[in-house]
Formats: sequence, C-alpha cells, structure tokens
Amino acid sequence: MNPVSLLIRKRDGECLAASEITDLVTAYTRGAVPDYQMAAFLMAAFIQGLNDTEAAALTRAMLHSGEVLDLSDLPGLKVDKHSTGGVGDKISLLLAPLVAACGVPVPMISGRGLGHSGGTLDKLEAIPGFNVNLSIPEYRAQLERIGVVMIGQTAEIAPADKKLYALRDVTGTVESIPLIAASIMSKKLAEGIDALVLDVKSGRGAFMKEEADARKLAETLVGIGREFDKPTVALLTDMNNPLGRSIGNWPETAEAICVLRGETPAGGPVDDVIDVTLALAAEMLHLGGVADSPDGGYVQARHALDSGHAFEKLIELVEAQGGDLAVLDAPSTRKGAQPVAEIRAPENAAGYVTAIDALALGWAAVHLGAGRAKKEDPVDPSAGFVLTTLVGDPVEPGDVLATVYAADPSRLDAEAVQAAFTYDSAPPAATSRLLDRYDGAQWTGF
Amino acid sequence: MNPVSLLIRKRDGECLAASEITDLVTAYTRGAVPDYQMAAFLMAAFIQGLNDTEAAALTRAMLHSGEVLDLSDLPGLKVDKHSTGGVGDKISLLLAPLVAACGVPVPMISGRGLGHSGGTLDKLEAIPGFNVNLSIPEYRAQLERIGVVMIGQTAEIAPADKKLYALRDVTGTVESIPLIAASIMSKKLAEGIDALVLDVKSGRGAFMKEEADARKLAETLVGIGREFDKPTVALLTDMNNPLGRSIGNWPETAEAICVLRGETPAGGPVDDVIDVTLALAAEMLHLGGVADSPDGGYVQARHALDSGHAFEKLIELVEAQGGDLAVLDAPSTRKGAQPVAEIRAPENAAGYVTAIDALALGWAAVHLGAGRAKKEDPVDPSAGFVLTTLVGDPVEPGDVLATVYAADPSRLDAEAVQAAFTYDSAPPAATSRLLDRYDGAQWTGF
Repeated sequence: MNPVSLLIRKRDGECLAASEITDLVTAYTRGAVPDYQMAAFLMAAFIQGLNDTEAAALTRAMLHSGEVLDLSDLPGLKVDKHSTGGVGDKISLLLAPLVAACGVPVPMISGRGLGHSGGTLDKLEAIPGFNVNLSIPEYRAQLERIGVVMIGQTAEIAPADKKLYALRDVTGTVESIPLIAASIMSKKLAEGIDALVLDVKSGRGAFMKEEADARKLAETLVGIGREFDKPTVALLTDMNNPLGRSIGNWPETAEAICVLRGETPAGGPVDDVIDVTLALAAEMLHLGGVADSPDGGYVQARHALDSGHAFEKLIELVEAQGGDLAVLDAPSTRKGAQPVAEIRAPENAAGYVTAIDALALGWAAVHLGAGRAKKEDPVDPSAGFVLTTLVGDPVEPGDVLATVYAADPSRLDAEAVQAAFTYDSAPPAATSRLLDRYDGAQWTGF
Repeated sequence: MNPVSLLIRKRDGECLAASEITDLVTAYTRGAVPDYQMAAFLMAAFIQGLNDTEAAALTRAMLHSGEVLDLSDLPGLKVDKHSTGGVGDKISLLLAPLVAACGVPVPMISGRGLGHSGGTLDKLEAIPGFNVNLSIPEYRAQLERIGVVMIGQTAEIAPADKKLYALRDVTGTVESIPLIAASIMSKKLAEGIDALVLDVKSGRGAFMKEEADARKLAETLVGIGREFDKPTVALLTDMNNPLGRSIGNWPETAEAICVLRGETPAGGPVDDVIDVTLALAAEMLHLGGVADSPDGGYVQARHALDSGHAFEKLIELVEAQGGDLAVLDAPSTRKGAQPVAEIRAPENAAGYVTAIDALALGWAAVHLGAGRAKKEDPVDPSAGFVLTTLVGDPVEPGDVLATVYAADPSRLDAEAVQAAFTYDSAPPAATSRLLDRYDGAQWTGF
C-alpha cells in the first residue's frame, strides 16, 4: 500500500477499494502512516466524499483497531441507542432502564459533553457516586445480572477512532457525514450489540443544522449498520428548541428521574421528552424481539413507564454502579438543585414564544459551567437552566422564562439567555419532535 | 490566526486574505503550525484552488522565509530564465552565456534532475571541476565581474519552499498549478532579478501534459511576477519529443558546447535548440533593456551566437567556476564521451519517424544512470542518448535511431528506447517548438 497514491486518487475524486481504506487506517493506527498523510487524506475525503462502501470500510478498520466485545453468550438480543447530540437531550437516562425493564438488554457506552451539546456520562455522574468507569468484565456481569449498564468508552474500544477524531478536530475535517458516521458506528458496533436505534437530530441545536444533512447522515449510519448485518433504524427528530425543559447535567438528570417517577419535573410537563423516549423504545423493543412491531413496542414501553417498572430499573442501575439512591427519591434535595436566579421576559415580549434558540442556550449552559472549554476542565454538575416557558406558551413582560442553577452564579450571561427567546403576537403552529423514520429501505414517517 | 478556521474556509472553497496566507506559512516555517495542519491546508488548496492573490501571498511568504538577494547596487537589469523542465532541455547552458555576452547580467540559480527530467546543476557538473556551490558573496562578485553566474539553491533561499515541497511530495499535493507557481517564483524572486523569462513546457515529456494546464501555469507564473513588479514573459514550448538530440548530463552539455562553438553536435543539427535559445534570449535582452523589442533582441542574440561571443562568455563562466576548459575545446575527449551501443530501428519500422516519446526516453536515461532514484544517489555524468534520427526523418529497419553512452552499459533498457519511436508511411506535419507567447496581458503568438 502506497499512501501517497491513495491520497492522489481520493484527491481526484476516485473511490478507493475497501481493502485500501482498511490498509490505510490500519497503518495509521500502528504509526506506519504519519499524521500529515492522514490529515491530507481526511481533507480529500471531506471534500470529495466517501461512498457507502468506503464509509463501511473505514468503520470496519476503526472497529477492528481495538477490542470488539462479544456478548453473544448472554441471553437476548442486545440493543442500544445512539443520539447525534443536542441541547437538553437526556433521553438515554430514561430509555436505557425503560427498555431493560421490558426485557431487552441495553449495553450502553456513552460520551461526554462536546461543544454546546451535553453528554450522557456527565449527566450520570451528576448522581453522586455513580461510576461510569467499569471494566469490561464488570460491564458484562452487570448486563447479565440486571439487563442494563451505562459506561464510558474504554481505551480498548476503537482506538483508531480516538486518534482520527483528535486529528479531525485540529484539521478542519469534523463535519463530514461519512467520517461522522464511521466514527459513531465503529464505537457502537464494538459494544457487542445485535441491533441499534439512532436518534438523528436536525436543527439549530444539533450538529446537523440542515434537515437534508441530517437525513443523509441517518441514511449513511443505517447503511453501515446493515453492512455489518446489524438491524438499524433511525428516527429523525427536531432539535431547533431545547428538548424538554432542562439544560445542564443535574437539571437534566432530575428531569429524567421525575418523568420515570411519574411526576411533573421542575418547570412543568415535558411531553416531547416522553414522546421521543417512547418512540425510540418502541423501535428498540421491536429490534430486540420482544415486540412484533414498533407499535407493539410502544404499548409495552408506555406500560413500563406508567407502571413504575422503568423507574425500578433505574434504581437497580444506579445502585449497581454505586450512585446515591437518595437523590432518586427526592431530586430537589441534591446540592445545587435550588435555583439561584430567574430570567424574565423583557419589556418588548408580548404574545407567544415562537422559538427558543437551542444553540444559544447550549452555549450559555457551557458558559455557566455545565460544559468544558478544554477537555480537562471540570464541569459544575448543578449548572444549567430550566425553562418555565416553552414554545407556544403565552408570555407577558416580566414573566419568568427560565430558572438558573449554578455553583457560581457570576458566570450567568442573562442577556444571552433572554435573547434566545423569540416572540410573536400569533401562536406558532404546533409541531412534533418526531419528524421521520428511516428503516434502511425508505423514509416511512410515523 | 486560528489555523483550523483557515483550513475550514479553504476546505469550503472560500478565498483567504493575503495576510491570512502569509500568517499561516510564516507560522508553519517557524514550526508553530504542525505538518498535519499544513498537509490538510495543501490538500484543500489543491482541490479548491488558490486565486492569483492567494498564490502571490503564498509566494511572498515563502520568498521572505529566507534571504532575498539585493543586486540593485550592480549595474544593469538582471534577467533570468526558468524552465518548467523537460527531456533534453540544455537551453540554460547556451542561454546564460549568450545573454551575458550581449550585456545583460544573468544571475541563475538552478536545480538538479527531478523524476524523468534533467537538471542544469547536474549538466554543469558534467564539466570536470565545475563548482556550483558558490557562497552568496562569490555569486555577487562573479556576476559583477563577468556578468553571468550559475549556482545551486543555497540554504538561505526560501527555506519555507523546501519545507513545503517536501510535505507536498508525501501528501499527494505536488501537481497543483498555484502551488507549483508559488514554489518556482519564490526561488526566482529571491535571486535579486529585475525581470524573468519563463519557458513553460507542454506535452508528454513535460510536467504539464496538457496544453491547457501549461497555459494556466504560464498565466499564473507571469501574474505572480507582475504582482512583484518584475516584468515577466512566458514562452509556451512543445515537449512531446526530446529537445535537440541529446538526453543525459554530459551528452547535453556537449551538445550545448557544440552549438556555441558553431559546430554540428553528435547526431546532427539541432535547429530546435537554437530556435528556443534565441527566442528566450530575445525576450531576456528586451526585458534587460539592451533591445527595444524582442525582435531587436533576436538580432543581437543571433549575432552573439554566430560571432562566437557567446562561446567566449561560456569559457569565462567555466573558468570562473573552476571547470576544465579542455572539454570546451574538444568535447569528444571527455571520459565516457564515446558511444557504447546503438539502438536500431526494428523490422517493422518503415516510412518516417512520427513521434519520439520524451517521457519514455527521460526514464530510460534515468535508468541508465543519468538521474536518481533517491535524492542521495550519485549520477553517471556520461550516461544518456544521442538521437541520430529525429521526428520527420525517413527510416528503414536496421537504421541507427540513437547512440548510447554509459559507464555501465548493462543498465541499458534497449527495448524501452526502441519502443519510444513511432513510425508511419507518411511524414508528419512540420511543427515548431515555439507554441505561443504570454506577456501578462494576452497570448500574442510569435
């Protein structure tokens, strides 16, 4: 394999053979191809694109750069969910115990916050004592015992993806659909899953701002899943406004706990969170073989939520991973769980809230301490917002729009939060979070 | 300057400001931008292109990465020629003394053989004792004393170009017209010249195989020259067949000496070599201010050649740089100057030679020892070919096509040389080496 000739062919828009991609990535991972050659390849691949075969070959090379877990000796079809990330996306915290409560094992490996978007690991760690750093044997044992486990990526999983992602980050080659898809799928396929459901987010608070890009990403992800004989379904969901009412690690975890307890979270009901959770659960239960159809899965998921079985599974999960059970019983008793400020509607606010800029609120939360400017920065688990006013709500000057939580309230940029709200005299048209569904063959809708 | 944001903008096809290109290259040269970021930039620039302003900014940054010679205290307008390289291109050896003999100082900094194409330094060093490694003070002093000096690139000249060229070589980003143009011009502008004539070659034996690419390169080179207020003219010349009859370092030097002596070189007359030399000299004498027009320059150049003044200047040059004058008087007495083999026309040869593949003969000469596989390889100065049959000549089976010169005749690939010749029953149409002329405003023809 001559890396320069591969670079030249990709530069000129040719498609490479799967074996060529595999050789290149394998050589890069072991250090035989230097960073500068891979950087040139990534830029060429970004601009000229990778077709489905190339994206699958890249996924395969990254997948096999590390350990590929084999959970086939454990009973049941193991199913996971991956979200492309958004603002207020606490769905994993509800979904994993809910699906496990219905009898489908959920082995979930998650990430930390990235840019304006939160990460499941940071939200789990907002539960005092919760340990996301299990060994692989501990991960297997817990999955077998209680049917659900939620950990962080280990060094054994897809090291080539770590190395490539770090290089993409510093070479302006992050936002490529095939590169993103290969990165996601190499990590998910290494978990030992039998099937996968994807929550592909589109809109202002998502990494894919344009719906067409989000659809293309969904199709690429599902295509890779099918190349690996793993049934994969993608839901396209709206991420223009924050999901639910809470943004920030503990605020989001508290919201998830309240929903699973059957209580109204701080700020008010969060119907969209419940809609997205049940739609994803319906697909997982279908792919996991406990429901004949997504509709059948929906009924089971609804029952697990309403009956409290999902909450019971959350208690099992938190207990198994060393978390403080007291905060599950009374989320508002956690340190930092009381608001430190309020954001109020300005003088010119009148009529209805027509939009809440998820991207602006995501960055405002990072600024407040909920996220990191640098990888090694600590996060303030308490930091964040709870929206007391949602899109479609009537509003008058002085109304409370959001409450603020933070260990250091001086980091609040109240104007940025206020500016994230848009008003109009007429109410906006009602919309659903659930935009479309892709099953690998077609977009079916709901 | 944030290199990643510049990479992203170039990736997306935006044009960067001159100051941004300057900052990036300057930071790269001093090591503040790593190879992997510059590699990604080069690939983005290759695919998306650089406009004239960007190419000029890149040239300026590379030029000012090292010493820029100032020859303005020496009398006269200093003019140089640069060729984009071909097979059998010994023009510099005739041109530099010829132009100097007409009173225009020629400070020439040349390169070594690259790929299938020879280099002026290797040809000069085929004269025993000729020293191409003068210091900058020696270079200035010789130019002042005899009006001509021919040396190799020093470490002080455009170090950023060296670093960038090495990176382009291993990242598949060599054949980009603006990157090539900036590399050439940064070195030429550092010589302290007042004006420049370019010999841009097009065809099978050139780096630009397509005439459209060669025209674009000529326009880019001339555009950069004008950005730096250096009058620059480009001639577009044909490089499908080897130039003249000789290929290889001493064979080419001997051919140049014979032409300057007014003698017929080995193999026969070389009208094309004389045509190209006089056309380039005409432009140089015009830009150097000793002729009112290229036509006037042509008359002076013709006189300098025919009168022997150009040959006298060659003697001065070789003497000044330590070369053996005996080989100027009797080129055939040099060690290795006698043929060791002949290449004959095959049985199926009949009619006329219609093409001689310059690229194939260039590589055959490299294989024979005239060029290098690796940078540190020695060259055999004697190795090469002399064409006894040119395009348009009648041919019969068994006729001698070429004579072979080599210290190690076992390296001869006779079949490859034979296969470089194409025949037809009808003679080919007569063509000129001189295809077109670009003066910075338009293509004028001759």
